[in-house]
Amino acid sequence: MKERIVETSIQLFDKKGFTGTSIKEIVEELNVTKGTFYYYFKSKEELLKDIHLTYIDDLIEQQKVILEDSNKDCIEKLYGLILMVISNIGSNRESARIFTREVRHLSEKHVEEIKGKRNLFRKRYQELIEKGIRQGEFKDTIPADMLTFGILGIINWTYYWYNPEGEISEEELAQMFTNIILEGVKNDKLR
Amino acid sequence: MKERIVETSIQLFDKKGFTGTSIKEIVEELNVTKGTFYYYFKSKEELLKDIHLTYIDDLIEQQKVILEDSNKDCIEKLYGLILMVISNIGSNRESARIFTREVRHLSEKHVEEIKGKRNLFRKRYQELIEKGIRQGEFKDTIPADMLTFGILGIINWTYYWYNPEGEISEEELAQMFTNIILEGVKNDKLR
Repeated sequence: MKERIVETSIQLFDKKGFTGTSIKEIVEELNVTKGTFYYYFKSKEELLKDIHLTYIDDLIEQQKVILEDSNKDCIEKLYGLILMVISNIGSNRESARIFTREVRHLSEKHVEEIKGKRNLFRKRYQELIEKGIRQGEFKDTIPADMLTFGILGIINWTYYWYNPEGEISEEELAQMFTNIILEGVKNDKLR
Repeated sequence: MKERIVETSIQLFDKKGFTGTSIKEIVEELNVTKGTFYYYFKSKEELLKDIHLTYIDDLIEQQKVILEDSNKDCIEKLYGLILMVISNIGSNRESARIFTREVRHLSEKHVEEIKGKRNLFRKRYQELIEKGIRQGEFKDTIPADMLTFGILGIINWTYYWYNPEGEISEEELAQMFTNIILEGVKNDKLR
């Protein structure tokens, strides 16, 4: 039941916003009583926190698996991390949008907790870039923090436009973005 | 007065969300009557539409000036467009966030109007890439539409993290991102 409450709320929050969705609407959609809701969550804010934590914990866990794969070099890991986020879109598009939009409705304590985990996710990305620079896979002229923000921008934005059921597969898109980041788009041949 | 209503509403919408902000709060913040509000706007939704339209019309206008500059090649225009968005952050951060978050609260008719303009903004970016490919400035192996989404991702994301008062200037950041996009980050020298 907890899972069903979460799923239904994600749909409603995505469609009508966190503030625009009442607990009454959530339980009516599920055909249960408010008591059922309060058995699992102390408040709507607590539910929102739960959605945020589940989302970011899951990303951090997936990221860890890729980063700890000793068979891959930094370039391959970069591709893996880009593909990972794109592959999450199909199942997690709504959660991702809530994650970006509704964080301001969390209590200060919860915002701090989520921010800490967001920062951890970003830092692990940055550590990969730094390692790649040390090992000579990436240019040492690139500020690792700025590059990290750039890469996160590319992949976070996919939630707003990419259709996993469209013509371009997740792997193809991840490969294109990896190529752009690695090789750049300038034509070096003389015109 | 119209401008003051818009400014105040942008601050409140950013902080509390569109649904979480009432007309009552807006007019109380300004110390005016509801009548004043309704003199300028038929509804809160109409005000939200106004914020969206002002934001996107302004971006399209700035974009046009850069694209029509006959002294610049495509690479220089790309830098100009990236700098343009980053330079808007200082003055327009809240509007930009509202633009991304609250579009779902607009009426269908208004959503279509805004979407049309968003698409125009993106298409003009894409046309620049296509022109750059034709003229041999960019590689012809890159799908122009995907590259456009990637670039928009990088710059749209800056609204969430970049601090124009921080250590890195707008010009430096625009130059870094342009370099990454043009040259890539892979180290081509043998290790």
